[in-house]
Amino acid sequence: MLPGVGVFGTGSTARVLVPLLKAEGFEVHALWGRSEEEAGSLAKELAIPFHTSRSDDVLLHQEVDLVCIYIPPSMTRQIAVKAMGIGKNVVCEKAATAVDAFKMVTAARYYPQLLSIMGNTLRFLPAFVAMRQLLVEGYVGEVQVCDVRVYGPSLLDRSYGWTCEELMGGGGLHTVGSAVIDLLSHLTGARARRVHGLLRTFVQQNGAIRGIRRVTSDDFCFFQMLMGGAGPVSGTSSGVCCTVTLNFNMPGSFVHEVMVVGSTGRLVARGTELFGQRNGSNGEEQLLVDSGWAGPGAQEMPLPHLRGLSSMVKALRQSFQAHDERRSWARAPVATAPTFEDGLYVQTVVEAVKRSSCSGEWECVEIMSQEPDPNQNLCEALQRNKN
Amino acid sequence: MLPGVGVFGTGSTARVLVPLLKAEGFEVHALWGRSEEEAGSLAKELAIPFHTSRSDDVLLHQEVDLVCIYIPPSMTRQIAVKAMGIGKNVVCEKAATAVDAFKMVTAARYYPQLLSIMGNTLRFLPAFVAMRQLLVEGYVGEVQVCDVRVYGPSLLDRSYGWTCEELMGGGGLHTVGSAVIDLLSHLTGARARRVHGLLRTFVQQNGAIRGIRRVTSDDFCFFQMLMGGAGPVSGTSSGVCCTVTLNFNMPGSFVHEVMVVGSTGRLVARGTELFGQRNGSNGEEQLLVDSGWAGPGAQEMPLPHLRGLSSMVKALRQSFQAHDERRSWARAPVATAPTFEDGLYVQTVVEAVKRSSCSGEWECVEIMSQEPDPNQNLCEALQRNKN
Repeated sequence: MLPGVGVFGTGSTARVLVPLLKAEGFEVHALWGRSEEEAGSLAKELAIPFHTSRSDDVLLHQEVDLVCIYIPPSMTRQIAVKAMGIGKNVVCEKAATAVDAFKMVTAARYYPQLLSIMGNTLRFLPAFVAMRQLLVEGYVGEVQVCDVRVYGPSLLDRSYGWTCEELMGGGGLHTVGSAVIDLLSHLTGARARRVHGLLRTFVQQNGAIRGIRRVTSDDFCFFQMLMGGAGPVSGTSSGVCCTVTLNFNMPGSFVHEVMVVGSTGRLVARGTELFGQRNGSNGEEQLLVDSGWAGPGAQEMPLPHLRGLSSMVKALRQSFQAHDERRSWARAPVATAPTFEDGLYVQTVVEAVKRSSCSGEWECVEIMSQEPDPNQNLCEALQRNKN
Repeated sequence: MLPGVGVFGTGSTARVLVPLLKAEGFEVHALWGRSEEEAGSLAKELAIPFHTSRSDDVLLHQEVDLVCIYIPPSMTRQIAVKAMGIGKNVVCEKAATAVDAFKMVTAARYYPQLLSIMGNTLRFLPAFVAMRQLLVEGYVGEVQVCDVRVYGPSLLDRSYGWTCEELMGGGGLHTVGSAVIDLLSHLTGARARRVHGLLRTFVQQNGAIRGIRRVTSDDFCFFQMLMGGAGPVSGTSSGVCCTVTLNFNMPGSFVHEVMVVGSTGRLVARGTELFGQRNGSNGEEQLLVDSGWAGPGAQEMPLPHLRGLSSMVKALRQSFQAHDERRSWARAPVATAPTFEDGLYVQTVVEAVKRSSCSGEWECVEIMSQEPDPNQNLCEALQRNKN
């Protein structure tokens, strides 16, 4: 039996997600927005019976068993952790910091019976499902290099907001790069050990953002990851070099290309389609055709993310459908979804890339295993005073 | 009046170059090869009247006024410097080290009346001639990012040789990357101040290279250059980020893509064709069509290099045609050709990228201004003994 859904957020993802949920048979009972007006307006547009600007009203809503959180990164941790505390299943977007991500992991470990997945939808995109399968089957041999490029128009909102602020989780690296980082570890079965990166904000002001305000989030980001350790995908033991180029100063275009080069061949996902070439063959073969997108949302988000979101909602339906009880779910259909642990890894890599961009050096990726003591500075100061 | 030509080398470039020279009206009088057999065989094939394995026989040949040197990098400096000393005009490929490149610069400065250009032919490719013109005219606005990708099959020779040896000038960075480095400084009018890079040799052995021999030259190379200083192209004052990815583990494909992204638009050369898009327009426009290559050599080298080489030979013809005397030449037709000074810059960047790949750090590009003393170690040892 499908659970009732409560949605947090009034942005483009929420706007696309609600029709997708409804199409799969989910009932969306409640919508949260930062203001009553925003929530009311979108609730009316999407025919959601209840809207509010108080988060508890959604979290405590009787009919809501699954909470989908698509709000600014800095607010995500608070809602996600609270939702789990109340016993709700959670699908959510990335947090703003590794500390936030760690707190979400702690909550997810504490409530293992609850569904808790990161809403990075690229893993669900059929092209990447097929790519991963082919990698496991050895299509490219030993994986050597992954090369990812995402080019598109500015990610900034029309008005000044979190998307302009690096510390609020804005910028190409945090917004788009994190999905790529997650995807690459999913595809290769390995995790980044060391990263090197360069971030730039080429457009620091525009018509809407001016005066003393400046954009601090990156619109160009370029990073490398050295992946290590043998993973589930055979032959990644000797290490894979990943290079990722993100450029959001290219209005009027959208390029989303993920290439994996190995010892005996290569695979390339261009947008939502998959191509491959084995060494020795004369040309590329198309391995997955995309017949186009007929549903809504094509104006709101790039096709790979849209189609991935749609596939994730389908997987959620299968997961919940398997059980009679509204809050119970089966693990298999969402087994490949990113967990909160994956979210912590991604956030850790993002922060290492940012550190590298400042230091100019390769930075190690060290996953937090213990929450940093918020009073550490205070303790150290006291300690110093004592001596 | 066109000068008589002597060609050094029996590799694929020499094989393509001779017919191109003849097609423009140059007479090729002499060919040098490392062995009499190699030289004799190619001389017969290309109908060159004289061949030898002794370099002086070409350099001192009465009919030879222009020497084209396309031989392994480690031998280039010696021949090029000697040729200028004898008073011959020189077109040559890159040297093996910055010290060699510096010695060539010294010779070129000493004989300013002689033509001395580096045979990097990408600058002459019509797509890049047009791209540079459009950059100067402000098509992309302020240049922000250059992104270059060259993918292709292995660069190794069939048998073990200099292409396998990093120290002999083998590898993707030295062979192909150097042409890209030169091109980017030509296009942006700026030079790299700092570089960061990563080199890998994924294929260390193959059917022909085995036993105790290993390939040490890179088959994957990935580097970034931070370009600085205002150049002839307007708006490069705030610095340009260049990223270059070279991958020669992709048999059966050839990708040669150079993209320049600026504040108001972008230009992309794919192979020998040029595309552009201004911000605000709906799609790419094709700015230069390539109608295909009818001449010989398409089996021997990638089309961008082949067409560039052909354009360079045309420019040489125009340069020499302007004068009646066989050794005199006009500067204008070859004004955009890379000089030996450019060759030293390129070699310096190549070595900085290699250093960066070892150190993991950003490395500064510092052009040699004085030849390192070959006896420095000896002097230091003597000094130590005295104390």
